[in-house]
Amino acid sequence: MEQYNKLQVEAIKCGSVIDHIPAKIGFKLLTLFRLTETEQRITIGLNLPSKKIKKKDIIKLENTFLTDEQINQLAICAPYVTVNHINNYQLVGKIFPVLPDYIEATLMLLNLVLN
Amino acid sequence: MEQYNKLQVEAIKCGSVIDHIPAKIGFKLLTLFRLTETEQRITIGLNLPSKKIKKKDIIKLENTFLTDEQINQLAICAPYVTVNHINNYQLVGKIFPVLPDYIEATLMLLNLVLN
Repeated sequence: MEQYNKLQVEAIKCGSVIDHIPAKIGFKLLTLFRLTETEQRITIGLNLPSKKIKKKDIIKLENTFLTDEQINQLAICAPYVTVNHINNYQLVGKIFPVLPDYIEATLMLLNLVLN
Repeated sequence: MEQYNKLQVEAIKCGSVIDHIPAKIGFKLLTLFRLTETEQRITIGLNLPSKKIKKKDIIKLENTFLTDEQINQLAICAPYVTVNHINNYQLVGKIFPVLPDYIEATLMLLNLVLN
């Protein structure tokens, strides 16, 4: 039968890649931050092998650039993620989220979603 | 900066590919059928271009073969999906779900999730 490589999900041309998400957290980030509520292409890998954290999730958002505030919010769920900004298939920025000094209202919601 | 192709999410070696899911339905299938509750690798593409249905979602489940019953249940949410079984990167089976003659208990739940 035919070779199945044609269904490969390719690298994005332009947008954000949320990388090094601990396995099992990626799907929760998608839900919590409503990342799938867009017309843009999204590619997601769950339970992928990782040298850094053994098993990771990854989310690629085409034509979407996360703001610093959004990136820092990600850190509440997944402190060691990196967010890569891509332009024309090239890495043009690498952002490490910073945990906020204090967290006010989101914890109850997070607790609901993550447990 | 470095070429970003290395983060490409590749084709699966062995498992099931749920293809031609209408855009916006893929994430709901993941939730409804709890497809992410596994240790196996999953790759997902949302809002991908499709000749057949313009925009589609696709879900690739590594080392997981859906049963006929599970495949037919998918058809309730997405009647025109195809499920491809892959072995050693080759397409070894193509299954078209069949809608059951009658549906008893799942409709209420579906209505809750899909709307």
